[in-house]
Amino acid sequence: MKNTLYYIIVLYSFFLVSCNDSLSLTETKVTNVEELNAAIKECQPGDNIVLSNGVYKDVRIEFIGHGTPENPIVLRAETPGEVSIEGRSNLKLGGEYLVVEGLHFKNGYTPTKSVIQFRIDNKLFASHTKVTNCVIEEFTQPDRDATDHWVEIWGRHNELSNNYIAGKSNFGPTVMVMLKGNEHIKNYHQIVNNHFGPRPRKGGPHGETMQIGDSGTSMMPSHTNVSNNFFERCNGEVEVISSKSNFNEFRNNVFFESEGSLVLRHGNFATIDGNVFIGNDNSEFIGGIRVINTGHWITNNYFYKLKGSIFRAPLAVMNGIPKSPQNRYNQVTDAVMAYNSFVDCETPFHFSVGSNVSQSEVLPKSEIRSARPKRTIVANNILYNETPFDYPIKNYDKVDGVTFKNNYSNSDNKSEVQPEGLIKTDLAFANNIPSVSSKDLYAGFDFETINKDIFGSDRTSDNNTAGAIVNTTKDPLNIDKSKYGTDWFTAEKPKTESKTISVATSEGLNKSLLEANSGDILELKSGTYQLDKTLKVNKSVTITSADKNNKAELVFSANNTAFEMNPKGMLKIEGLVLKGNKSQSAFKTLDKNMTSAYGLQINNTEISDFRSVLEVSKGSFADTVAVRNSSIKNCLKGIQLNKETNDKGDYNSEFVYITDNTFTNVGENVVNYYRGGYDESTIGGNLVFKNNTVSNCGKTEKENILIKNRGIVNVQFANNTFKNNPVKVVAVLWGEKGQKPENNTISNSGEIKVVQNLKLKLMY
Amino acid sequence: MKNTLYYIIVLYSFFLVSCNDSLSLTETKVTNVEELNAAIKECQPGDNIVLSNGVYKDVRIEFIGHGTPENPIVLRAETPGEVSIEGRSNLKLGGEYLVVEGLHFKNGYTPTKSVIQFRIDNKLFASHTKVTNCVIEEFTQPDRDATDHWVEIWGRHNELSNNYIAGKSNFGPTVMVMLKGNEHIKNYHQIVNNHFGPRPRKGGPHGETMQIGDSGTSMMPSHTNVSNNFFERCNGEVEVISSKSNFNEFRNNVFFESEGSLVLRHGNFATIDGNVFIGNDNSEFIGGIRVINTGHWITNNYFYKLKGSIFRAPLAVMNGIPKSPQNRYNQVTDAVMAYNSFVDCETPFHFSVGSNVSQSEVLPKSEIRSARPKRTIVANNILYNETPFDYPIKNYDKVDGVTFKNNYSNSDNKSEVQPEGLIKTDLAFANNIPSVSSKDLYAGFDFETINKDIFGSDRTSDNNTAGAIVNTTKDPLNIDKSKYGTDWFTAEKPKTESKTISVATSEGLNKSLLEANSGDILELKSGTYQLDKTLKVNKSVTITSADKNNKAELVFSANNTAFEMNPKGMLKIEGLVLKGNKSQSAFKTLDKNMTSAYGLQINNTEISDFRSVLEVSKGSFADTVAVRNSSIKNCLKGIQLNKETNDKGDYNSEFVYITDNTFTNVGENVVNYYRGGYDESTIGGNLVFKNNTVSNCGKTEKENILIKNRGIVNVQFANNTFKNNPVKVVAVLWGEKGQKPENNTISNSGEIKVVQNLKLKLMY
Repeated sequence: MKNTLYYIIVLYSFFLVSCNDSLSLTETKVTNVEELNAAIKECQPGDNIVLSNGVYKDVRIEFIGHGTPENPIVLRAETPGEVSIEGRSNLKLGGEYLVVEGLHFKNGYTPTKSVIQFRIDNKLFASHTKVTNCVIEEFTQPDRDATDHWVEIWGRHNELSNNYIAGKSNFGPTVMVMLKGNEHIKNYHQIVNNHFGPRPRKGGPHGETMQIGDSGTSMMPSHTNVSNNFFERCNGEVEVISSKSNFNEFRNNVFFESEGSLVLRHGNFATIDGNVFIGNDNSEFIGGIRVINTGHWITNNYFYKLKGSIFRAPLAVMNGIPKSPQNRYNQVTDAVMAYNSFVDCETPFHFSVGSNVSQSEVLPKSEIRSARPKRTIVANNILYNETPFDYPIKNYDKVDGVTFKNNYSNSDNKSEVQPEGLIKTDLAFANNIPSVSSKDLYAGFDFETINKDIFGSDRTSDNNTAGAIVNTTKDPLNIDKSKYGTDWFTAEKPKTESKTISVATSEGLNKSLLEANSGDILELKSGTYQLDKTLKVNKSVTITSADKNNKAELVFSANNTAFEMNPKGMLKIEGLVLKGNKSQSAFKTLDKNMTSAYGLQINNTEISDFRSVLEVSKGSFADTVAVRNSSIKNCLKGIQLNKETNDKGDYNSEFVYITDNTFTNVGENVVNYYRGGYDESTIGGNLVFKNNTVSNCGKTEKENILIKNRGIVNVQFANNTFKNNPVKVVAVLWGEKGQKPENNTISNSGEIKVVQNLKLKLMY
Repeated sequence: MKNTLYYIIVLYSFFLVSCNDSLSLTETKVTNVEELNAAIKECQPGDNIVLSNGVYKDVRIEFIGHGTPENPIVLRAETPGEVSIEGRSNLKLGGEYLVVEGLHFKNGYTPTKSVIQFRIDNKLFASHTKVTNCVIEEFTQPDRDATDHWVEIWGRHNELSNNYIAGKSNFGPTVMVMLKGNEHIKNYHQIVNNHFGPRPRKGGPHGETMQIGDSGTSMMPSHTNVSNNFFERCNGEVEVISSKSNFNEFRNNVFFESEGSLVLRHGNFATIDGNVFIGNDNSEFIGGIRVINTGHWITNNYFYKLKGSIFRAPLAVMNGIPKSPQNRYNQVTDAVMAYNSFVDCETPFHFSVGSNVSQSEVLPKSEIRSARPKRTIVANNILYNETPFDYPIKNYDKVDGVTFKNNYSNSDNKSEVQPEGLIKTDLAFANNIPSVSSKDLYAGFDFETINKDIFGSDRTSDNNTAGAIVNTTKDPLNIDKSKYGTDWFTAEKPKTESKTISVATSEGLNKSLLEANSGDILELKSGTYQLDKTLKVNKSVTITSADKNNKAELVFSANNTAFEMNPKGMLKIEGLVLKGNKSQSAFKTLDKNMTSAYGLQINNTEISDFRSVLEVSKGSFADTVAVRNSSIKNCLKGIQLNKETNDKGDYNSEFVYITDNTFTNVGENVVNYYRGGYDESTIGGNLVFKNNTVSNCGKTEKENILIKNRGIVNVQFANNTFKNNPVKVVAVLWGEKGQKPENNTISNSGEIKVVQNLKLKLMY
């Protein structure tokens, strides 16, 4: 290939409108990586290197060049979106005034620690360099525990604009701004007009969509500007954005149904202005802004139907650790929260979030958050609830360092904290904008600098009002998604009609499952299906009995597992009978390369004679595992979600619903669902164990616990019946997280314990 | 007085040259505080309030006014220096564009927490306000432990210029910049052209001459400018200046024989440029610059004959604590030390200062400084020693994060650290300026911003060279002291001739001591003096025998103590016989109000039959206590410097010399010299105990230790003889501080112990 190197070189000249300067451009079209490398090697200011349309697989591009402000060096797709970078590929940038345009990273992952990296090595980095109109789509590591960043920004004055970036499942922030060294501080990076598409729940920490600096560089002046981006269902962890440096700005972004918050985790003096947070009441995990540290100004933001609380509150102001270690929680001081509007967020303000003095027995002193916010101003905000809600403030400690001035609400305030500066009054509401007739505003120190509203309207006239919006004609929820991301990529896939495929034989089942499209339903005729091969599930598929009253019976002699759950395998089993030979699992994930989440729902099904109901591998993650209205019997083990034992906050499934089942003669434990390590970055797992009857189980259980849920944060445990299970403990619940047994019937089966404070391994 | 209020009001108009603007000024002359208050109440932009010459005693002035940039409001002395503020007095400032000129604070102290405070209360502070041409002289609290600041600066854009400030003995930085609140950050204060006169050793922490912020506000952007000041013998503690916030600048200051350093204690991104550090080989406690935290640029500085090491090294770069608590030691990163000149500083560079991994057994993990400097550049410096010295670098840990480039030295480098970037070469030396012929310079990141030298000469031409000075004609040691401080005050007092007063009777002794001038000598004729009154010492005085071979014998029946040491009492006893009645001390300080240090020297003297040789009060401080060639016998206790037991690093004397004495039949311990608390801010005390003979002492000593020196940092213990002292321990020495017994003879007197690591009470 190296011998067949050839170029097409097109020379032409044209006017650069911006500087009225005549120059000649070299456009070099390349068709493979060797040509590309050769073109890069020769590139001069003003050059265009054009990647011919096609797939570039397993390429590691080092784009090094030295452009000028007037004549950058451009690396672009022949047609935006028609050039894809696939396989084990990445792109590194070094030099200055470079532009990368129109590339599509997909069907692969980086062989290094980043997909696009704004540096070549320790010495050569990129400045004044732009990546624009590109897509990085599910370019995720096969192993959830493998760490990378998709975009790693070094240097100064770089731009990430108009890109679509979505689908990272593995460890590590999607976009990371690095500040390690004087060359990378005061960077004034522009992260603008991007569409950050869904990032799935990770089931562990380090799932941020963006992080700017880290605790070790949190004293750095960063000055990164994150503006006009659309964050759509960025659900990776509790922090959608983690700001960990000084003087960053977050302006006019939209956070749409994202399960997390914009978190000022380390560093100080951030500006959060004019952003829209939309919850749509969709989930109690959707947050707003969480405040830690000093000197932040939070102004002109609009919060809509956010149900989150505590860490995920619309506005969470944390307690700090006195004299905090650098990587933990500094006290909030000198924060200003002014001119924000909260619409149908029942309790917008949560103060002293994270206060944990009560956990002194299980936490070291250096983890106790007892330093309350101080010198903090809350002024000129509007709180509107269509149905008035009388608890606008939730406090987890005294609120003695916060001054409320001229905040207006249409509800009473029955909260423990009753500041004079929170005033009940009538509020108008039109175009989703609440407004107040009073013109009484607080003119705090430097408040004259808040001279525009969310839409840029002037605040300096007499028409200034409380809340994010001065002029009430423009609906803040009327968001034009076309403003964000590329000019060519559409994230929405065309909907395919799901079809029902009738199956009557074992061979037919094998074949149909292989050939089905995602979303299809396999409907099994009544009868017995002998299956000596594992059924592989790598798409969304439902397997059901045609006759609910005469269920199809699947008898497995396959080794290892009956069903093999693959990444993106979303299996729904409805009304079947599943029988094993006692040596295999009913359901099992791949041992490795569980790139993306899978899901499993089992309804109205009889499962018997398996080694285990579900077995998973360490790196696997199920968004949901649900077993309902089913009977499980004569299995050695039940539902096993216990392989993620790194004790760093990761776990194997987000939601586990076990309801209305009977478990009979399960040898060891019925459920084993584990999360280890003292971490607060995630939802922390959810177990609903209700209305089940468990009998004659646990005979060979070594730890003498029938239902294991250690470290899982959210647990409901109610209305179950336990009979004749020879264990000491039915379950251990975690009191501090509000877990309590309700209405369970226990006979001859040990007891349910509640431990108030669970001692977890410290990760810090 | 309030009824006799009257003014002299002088109205006249004149041109303000600066703005060519015609305006009428009101000049209000006041003669007492009531008139002053009335004038302040009425003051308008452009007003001058003139304090008539005289003494204003016990006045608490609140100067509140609202001037304008063109028309500030001025409060000034009728004649600079002829208006003194005395007694329990202070001055608070509130508003903007105020000027205070020509006042002299002396003979008193503040009744509050500051002498001049740039705020009235929590809400009203001063901005754009200037204090200039004033003196604060020994306006120190009577109690060393009482806390105050002499100048406390709040607000923004204030100026402290051309003042003389000296003689603070009590707890608290002399000048303190406060950053608590958004109103006080980004302050751009100008602390310029001041003369900071001597601040005596304090014998404990919190004796800084200037502090900017504190650990709790160390994340604040301060931008305070400290330039063109003269720091003369500012010996209060190890930090002459403690910078504890971000973006401060220290330019072109002179540090003259000051026992301490310019310390970047907290906060980041300081600029230290063009300063002169003069040690004159005078003391090993005189330091240069100590570096902690991130992003500091240390350029164009000139270091002359500095003998300090470790914390007081010419350039000390510390180890940090990994993930340090906010009030302890952050790691040094991203520091630049370039274009500095070191002249006759044998070992300019000390790296990983404070490394204390070896003390893990006595310190908690959160105190262990193991994080080495990283991403740090040392470049283009000159190291010149007239007598070449081959150990330019002292390292207390690995030096793996520091890059040396193009540094030039005229010595070999036999240090453990041997960077290529430290080059031996011939250096020229003229006008106290070393220079190198090589033009090879390192052009590091952002080095082009170092475009001037110490004198402002251009560095951008081809003539640029290493070291602080490009043009070698101007002597950096030729310092014009008249540039600093006021235009009227002279710190140097006229020298008085000391006279010798002959004394023959007890009455004569009493009278002569009372009437003597400081520096006089009382010469006692041979014979016995019966003294039933305590002799009060509040000046520098020597009491000696006229005939050394026939010593005067002073027999005391006075209660409490023979000699009472008062503040500034500097007593030298030479060749006397002092006898007590067993019930009183020979020497004793006041019980309280020991405002300033005292001193005591005893030579060739016989002391017997006292309760104790020296007793002190908690707040007292002796710079030096020396007992030489004397005999002490039949006393209950020896030299007691053990009352400062707050265990926060304070102690009762800086230097204690006990040499060539005999101690016989001293009942308890011979010396008790105590310093408690884990503190590194001070010299830490000095005990020289040499060539003494101690016998039959310690019979009633409860702790069974003959010489107590707990917590004292510097101890020499050599050539002593101990005979028949019934104790278990002669002394406990502190191995980690290099203390070791040398050549002592011990018989029937217990043993000398060496403890490697002393466990001290943590203060943080």
